[in-house]
Amino acid sequence: MIDFRPILNICGMLLIVMAVAMIFSALADVVNGNPDWMVFFSSSALTAFVGGALYLATRSGSPAEISRRQAFALTTFAWIFVSAAGALPFLFYGNALSLPDAVFESISGLTTTGSTVIAGLEQQPPGILLWRHLLQWIGGVGIILMAIIMLPFLGVGGMQLFETESSERSGRIVPRARQFVVYISLIYSGLTLICAITYYAMGMSAFDAMGHAMSTLSTGGFSTHDASFGYFESAHLQWGGTLFMLAGGIPFVAYIRFVRGQHGALFNDVQIKAFLFFLAFVSISLGIWLTSNGQAQSLEEGLRLAAFNVVSIVTTTGFATADYTLWGSLAVGLFFALTFVGGCTGSTSGGIKIYRHQILWTAVQAYVRQLISPHRVDVLNYGGLHVTRDVQASVLAFLAVFVGAFSITTVLLAAMGLDLVTALSASATAFANVGPGLGEIIGPAGNFSSLQDEAKWVLSAAMLLGRLELFTVLVLLDPDYWRG
Amino acid sequence: MIDFRPILNICGMLLIVMAVAMIFSALADVVNGNPDWMVFFSSSALTAFVGGALYLATRSGSPAEISRRQAFALTTFAWIFVSAAGALPFLFYGNALSLPDAVFESISGLTTTGSTVIAGLEQQPPGILLWRHLLQWIGGVGIILMAIIMLPFLGVGGMQLFETESSERSGRIVPRARQFVVYISLIYSGLTLICAITYYAMGMSAFDAMGHAMSTLSTGGFSTHDASFGYFESAHLQWGGTLFMLAGGIPFVAYIRFVRGQHGALFNDVQIKAFLFFLAFVSISLGIWLTSNGQAQSLEEGLRLAAFNVVSIVTTTGFATADYTLWGSLAVGLFFALTFVGGCTGSTSGGIKIYRHQILWTAVQAYVRQLISPHRVDVLNYGGLHVTRDVQASVLAFLAVFVGAFSITTVLLAAMGLDLVTALSASATAFANVGPGLGEIIGPAGNFSSLQDEAKWVLSAAMLLGRLELFTVLVLLDPDYWRG
Repeated sequence: MIDFRPILNICGMLLIVMAVAMIFSALADVVNGNPDWMVFFSSSALTAFVGGALYLATRSGSPAEISRRQAFALTTFAWIFVSAAGALPFLFYGNALSLPDAVFESISGLTTTGSTVIAGLEQQPPGILLWRHLLQWIGGVGIILMAIIMLPFLGVGGMQLFETESSERSGRIVPRARQFVVYISLIYSGLTLICAITYYAMGMSAFDAMGHAMSTLSTGGFSTHDASFGYFESAHLQWGGTLFMLAGGIPFVAYIRFVRGQHGALFNDVQIKAFLFFLAFVSISLGIWLTSNGQAQSLEEGLRLAAFNVVSIVTTTGFATADYTLWGSLAVGLFFALTFVGGCTGSTSGGIKIYRHQILWTAVQAYVRQLISPHRVDVLNYGGLHVTRDVQASVLAFLAVFVGAFSITTVLLAAMGLDLVTALSASATAFANVGPGLGEIIGPAGNFSSLQDEAKWVLSAAMLLGRLELFTVLVLLDPDYWRG
Repeated sequence: MIDFRPILNICGMLLIVMAVAMIFSALADVVNGNPDWMVFFSSSALTAFVGGALYLATRSGSPAEISRRQAFALTTFAWIFVSAAGALPFLFYGNALSLPDAVFESISGLTTTGSTVIAGLEQQPPGILLWRHLLQWIGGVGIILMAIIMLPFLGVGGMQLFETESSERSGRIVPRARQFVVYISLIYSGLTLICAITYYAMGMSAFDAMGHAMSTLSTGGFSTHDASFGYFESAHLQWGGTLFMLAGGIPFVAYIRFVRGQHGALFNDVQIKAFLFFLAFVSISLGIWLTSNGQAQSLEEGLRLAAFNVVSIVTTTGFATADYTLWGSLAVGLFFALTFVGGCTGSTSGGIKIYRHQILWTAVQAYVRQLISPHRVDVLNYGGLHVTRDVQASVLAFLAVFVGAFSITTVLLAAMGLDLVTALSASATAFANVGPGLGEIIGPAGNFSSLQDEAKWVLSAAMLLGRLELFTVLVLLDPDYWRG
């Protein structure tokens, strides 16, 4: 049997973090004289009580030694506990949401997806708006830590490639992880602060600047405006947003290395290079196309529109500065395809991710060479790392389950009455944690509020599954997991 | 350098087969007093001349020994030569098609896709109608032979699993293949004849019965009527069609084994069992749903509508007895997903195919077990065959390239102005060699005639790539292939 005490112990600590975060939203409402501050205080008290009780009750199970099996349960349970706490304020504030809506919004925030069921954001109280940004910000750092510490240790989706000193396959990951937590938190907070100051200097209000900075670095995409980032009609702000979304889509280990003096870490990494090259290529092509067919007034505007929205989808942020679905069928097809790309691993981005595309490409090339010369045996190499057969099998399994889960979810959503484009893009945007879909309902100019409750539950599960790289959750469904 | 003489020698022989086939269409026009018989005679003469010249000029290169490299070029070149010959009659008959239309129709026929650019089939002369069926019938047997003899030898897409005595990795595949060619041709012709007699007995005209039998066993799906199989409003015919489409989707090696006395071959094969179970499950579920919401008058009608159309798409035939896109969003989503399933390998079906789904599923299960117990090493087993790491790598490469090619083609088609549903489904139906797409233009009630020429070229290439399991063609694009 698995000892659940260390798992629940850590979940208890995370709930206390959530309780502390709620205080910030309460303060925002107090300052603005909004009575919802009581909701946040009560939610905080309840969360702190449950978290504290959980922590105290499980103190005896020291989390210093976490086994592989425990790590799977910990990762999944942590996201579920935190998502439940995140939903509390939505359930009880002035414009209270229904249970499926509150859970959807909380999961969309914490998974940094950024799909929303709230229309009329401008009319929402400041506490709840800040809460949405805080959820994304907390989710963002959670994902980075998970991707750097847990997933390589677990070998999920080929991420064993990225084992670092903190994630090697020994049981003692928690003590070694502490140092990483400090580094990552500092870098993440620092970048967010720089982003907020930049936004503020470029004309956002202090509140909007802080909130959008949190949703930018976390590649989340929640906004305080229904028009999303497009509300800010400043070219500088849009370029600034593009830059900081990029910053959120880069592996945070590269920042650590950079800070430690390896200045090449940011520019010599094969994943980062491919990521930036791909984004530049698509943005410039689309920008020229937009300008040449008159959808942008100048080349600068064309490039800006293209770069912002392409970077937003590929980093899985989901901000929009325009309804690109009105740019014609090419843009619709392109943005649908971009939904599946994803950012770099170890960043706050979701999706299939650049390194998996690169490993697939390497594997295809090796396969073609082997078809030509069957006795040839190639050792696959990815940026100096040895791509073992195990890594290939992990990527194969990830791709197969991603495509399978995406297909089944699409059929489920279609069965609930959604048209094919809405069903396909809702499923894709949820699994890849992007945010907007396509079509009139959930496109960049729409939101998810009018979907039926069943669809919201399915999409909430999809966002969580996608965020946890599918297998972290699926492993728990295998009866073998629960056996000795 | 590769010796192209044996390759061109075999291509020459295949052109002579095509020239002989054209005589049948000429005869159909002669009997009906249609002047197009001259077109078929001239096309036949031209094809025979080119084929004969090619054959004679390359006699010195004995095809008894074909190397791996030659086999790749042979497979691809054979389909291109034959497709070019197949397009000739369309270019010059009474209602002559344009070049892209003629090539599209020829490739759609030979790859047994069954998408058509010809509207008003009832007004077409008998020769051209018969030609369309002949193309599919020839293409069907070509695919079976390719899948049994060539692809396992080449190790394309994991098909090395299905190596038989005729396809082992020695160079002498041609002499050993002769015996298989005889067996397969007899079984294929026999089944077609039984199907034709059944159709005739159930009420089709002799011409329709023969033509539809050819397009059924080849899982091609061309019809002599714009309403496709739905033109025949007989319940018996529709059940009969369902049965014979199934027969075309089963591995033909199983028939050989059955005929040789292994009566279990047809029912104990893991691929056939999964194929039939899946089809039964989906058809029965959909049939009950159609009946319960009033879209069918009786359970028999519901099951018949569901079974015929589901079997038609999954076997990649593409006949339709109803416009299932009018059944609502569930049906649209479901039929889109079914487009990717495919029949069994070694049959006339296209698509991803059942065995690849099974291998993927096995690999995912093994991966999950390994995530739980990292030191565990499982030997993957597929119906008693050992799924080596090479087979897994082949399936991974196939899936990656299939998804990639499908995505790029979708974006290309969208760039040509097709809406997303049309672009996605056209790309899917072409790569999987199914036939109908979704949406008003290319849905089961439409056809491909109104697409622009560029889209027809792209889809022609996609049908050929899909039919040749992608890699048979892609290998030729690698510079290594052409080097010593």
